[in-house]
Amino acid sequence: MSNKIITIGREFGSGGREFGRKLAELLGFAYYDREIISEIVKRTSLSEQYVQNIAEHKPVISFPIHTGRTFLTWSVMPDYGQSVHSEQHNIIREAASKSNCVIVGRGADYILRDENPFRIFIYSSMESKLQRCKLNQSRDYDKGQELSDKEMVKRIEQINKSRADYYEFYTGQKWGDKSNYDICINTSFITPEKIAEAVKLLVC
Amino acid sequence: MSNKIITIGREFGSGGREFGRKLAELLGFAYYDREIISEIVKRTSLSEQYVQNIAEHKPVISFPIHTGRTFLTWSVMPDYGQSVHSEQHNIIREAASKSNCVIVGRGADYILRDENPFRIFIYSSMESKLQRCKLNQSRDYDKGQELSDKEMVKRIEQINKSRADYYEFYTGQKWGDKSNYDICINTSFITPEKIAEAVKLLVC
Repeated sequence: MSNKIITIGREFGSGGREFGRKLAELLGFAYYDREIISEIVKRTSLSEQYVQNIAEHKPVISFPIHTGRTFLTWSVMPDYGQSVHSEQHNIIREAASKSNCVIVGRGADYILRDENPFRIFIYSSMESKLQRCKLNQSRDYDKGQELSDKEMVKRIEQINKSRADYYEFYTGQKWGDKSNYDICINTSFITPEKIAEAVKLLVC
Repeated sequence: MSNKIITIGREFGSGGREFGRKLAELLGFAYYDREIISEIVKRTSLSEQYVQNIAEHKPVISFPIHTGRTFLTWSVMPDYGQSVHSEQHNIIREAASKSNCVIVGRGADYILRDENPFRIFIYSSMESKLQRCKLNQSRDYDKGQELSDKEMVKRIEQINKSRADYYEFYTGQKWGDKSNYDICINTSFITPEKIAEAVKLLVC
């Protein structure tokens, strides 16, 4: 495979998806994010919400076993979970073999590690994540339905914990650890447009 | 102060200084690295090697005190060490107030935190650090004087441990932790020239 592949890991609330879209547009590359979930839904005839839920969470049932000084974890994965995960893996590999592309999330940096993807991680301060989420919320919800700042921070932390767990479960690597990426960008003070232009220079 | 200030933290062996020089050239900004040491030498009439040594190491003598559940560290700093550190601090602030500039190392990101510097951290894999150091060594030393790979890796680790200790001692922050930087760049597969061009876009 000699396609140019860009993978984007991202903290929830840091604008990673927005940046990924802009970058793909700017480069004229294919863009995969929720498209991967839709494709699994087509192929497996499971519901979108169910797939979304499974595709972004590590298996829930696990038994820590204490043997001497070492902790082992033996996990049980529901059948559907296993097939969703394996389908996701296949779709990511197919996408990467088809054309130059930008793939957001789903441990694509690890799945495609033999193809030397350009690996980006997008993060920001909690204050910045909160502001971005509040802005999105005010667009999507009516007054009264909105979460308080405290509830929103809790939600951001929960989603990011879940992403970290998922990534670490499937890759054995630490999510967001800079040694696993070519570049880590803090979106607290830089716009997605500027970052996309700078990254374009790095990958071209 | 409204000068543009760029600070660069860097792992030893990752090409941070080379990148810093290129970036300063490209932007037409002043560049400070060893210049800070030379300025301290001028002002204090201490020897260059002595200042270099003190300016890059945290104080050596420290007594951990165990009080209940908390560990406190009480440190004794030699008089010269204190004046070198405080002189370094003054020079960095003076440099930042004079003109747009790039400052490499010396915890400048923290010292200048109220001036909103653009904070960069440069790192790379150990394999890449080793190759870069061997290349520099083969330029600077005769055959026979060179370190083995194993000795070189140990030296790289020691210097980076010392930088981490210094940074953490004076800032209370974790050296290389991405939350303290605007961008972290892995130089294992990207050239300093490309990175400098990309960063120019981000800061202009």
